Amino acid sequence: MAKRNKAGQGRKKPGPGLREALRIPGGERVRLSAYAADATPAGPRNKAEGLAATARMGERLAGLQERLYAASTAGDRRRILLVLQGMDTSGKGGTVKHVIGLFNPSGCRIQAFKAPTREELDHPFLWRVTKALPRPGEIGIFDRSHYEDVLIARVRELVPRSRLDRRYDQINDFERSLVDDGVSVVKVFLHISYEQQRRRLLARLDNPDKHWKFNPGDIDERGLWPAYQKAYEIALERCSTADAPWYLVPADRKWYRDWAVSTLLLEQLEALDPRYPPGDFDVEECRRRLLNDG
Amino acid sequence: MAKRNKAGQGRKKPGPGLREALRIPGGERVRLSAYAADATPAGPRNKAEGLAATARMGERLAGLQERLYAASTAGDRRRILLVLQGMDTSGKGGTVKHVIGLFNPSGCRIQAFKAPTREELDHPFLWRVTKALPRPGEIGIFDRSHYEDVLIARVRELVPRSRLDRRYDQINDFERSLVDDGVSVVKVFLHISYEQQRRRLLARLDNPDKHWKFNPGDIDERGLWPAYQKAYEIALERCSTADAPWYLVPADRKWYRDWAVSTLLLEQLEALDPRYPPGDFDVEECRRRLLNDG
Repeated sequence: MAKRNKAGQGRKKPGPGLREALRIPGGERVRLSAYAADATPAGPRNKAEGLAATARMGERLAGLQERLYAASTAGDRRRILLVLQGMDTSGKGGTVKHVIGLFNPSGCRIQAFKAPTREELDHPFLWRVTKALPRPGEIGIFDRSHYEDVLIARVRELVPRSRLDRRYDQINDFERSLVDDGVSVVKVFLHISYEQQRRRLLARLDNPDKHWKFNPGDIDERGLWPAYQKAYEIALERCSTADAPWYLVPADRKWYRDWAVSTLLLEQLEALDPRYPPGDFDVEECRRRLLNDG
Repeated sequence: MAKRNKAGQGRKKPGPGLREALRIPGGERVRLSAYAADATPAGPRNKAEGLAATARMGERLAGLQERLYAASTAGDRRRILLVLQGMDTSGKGGTVKHVIGLFNPSGCRIQAFKAPTREELDHPFLWRVTKALPRPGEIGIFDRSHYEDVLIARVRELVPRSRLDRRYDQINDFERSLVDDGVSVVKVFLHISYEQQRRRLLARLDNPDKHWKFNPGDIDERGLWPAYQKAYEIALERCSTADAPWYLVPADRKWYRDWAVSTLLLEQLEALDPRYPPGDFDVEECRRRLLNDG
């Protein structure tokens, strides 16, 4: 199963574990309504256990991250790209805060993608994401991504249908080129229910300190909920590949969401099994010089 | 004391507190040998208290950071730029891990500056730092900075002396323009002793998992210790301005270093006193629409 990338490092395909449980089978029809957004597959039994389990992962995650970064200083090109997608209020920002917050921030490259700027629109849709990719040893995080170009672009008919339809293959080709270069692409769809979105938007209205997060336009978008769910189903079906699978994380429960994304990253990092590189210098001589330099 | 910046937000000068205690008086001769690197001015009495005090600051720091970011969504241009400088092993990376790790990573923009690339050398020395500046609402962190261009550049005579001497004023002008645009510039010199550096380098040699951090060239650099100390003294003297002061943080004790940098950031954020912006929509109407949309 292990393939060699250009840098010669072993790279494993996703194995069993949570990744297997949450993975969307590629090429098969996806029906989001078949997945309960408040489910907790393979997870801790309740919130207290979930929070504790996530916190306990912190040290291992940061330790593996340090090894990944250390390996990059010796030429290992491997890195991780976490792609976060989901409807408004599904918890993309919360995931960054609570899961990515477990890592050393200096090794994380986080990019949130908003409505494209004039300059971004003047380039192919993959241009802006390409610029934000993680470097070897880093953990990249996309809060929204190139998938917006087949989601809102489809729902709002921002490009002609023929051009839109070509984008799925373009995305698959792009992601395959990333994998070839040593990037582990971990794509997570945060699945929430229509009712849960209502509760979260109402909660924002109830708290003046959250009003800055609220946009009345979000209520208009809710009117397009079925069209967005359909657009997600098509994207998940066409772009969950062997190289870069999609994972569906039930996200009505925040503690489960954080535990699941942490676990997916932990499994991925453990599969990579990065190692501290050996030094290429004479330890004894360096020690002697240090002890005798005044 | 409060001045108004272009965006019309109040901006306070550094007030009393740790900032006053650690601030380098501008324009006066600086003698680094007069500062004990293992001192703990105005700090907790021991490591256990220091670690606990730093951890306790986490929630307030993240809360103020969220307010700062929220305010930016309503046009507030204020943001923070933390500049970290210090000799090898002084703990710049550790500070990012332990102090910046207390914040929400999505609001932090971290840049480590290494030896300049060919492209960077083709531009004025402030070009690369300008590209990495934080946006409104963000906390920017420079691990090394434009000060390298008057530190290693001075010690290694990388540019003619006349050009080097002009850089101090250029830096002061640059930082003043940042402050005018709403950036709080917090410059921290992590002060360690020659002996402490020796201990830390030896510790890296003793642990094979740390060999990737070790470079025999670091021992050669130690031979230039007095020249570097002198270069720092000149930079601190000429560039600790009212707008953008330098703080000297004794850094032989890691727990004190983390407590001090956290406290400097906390004081700065509290002086900014960012507020959640009010919503500009009809809360009751939004609530009604949400409750009735199916």
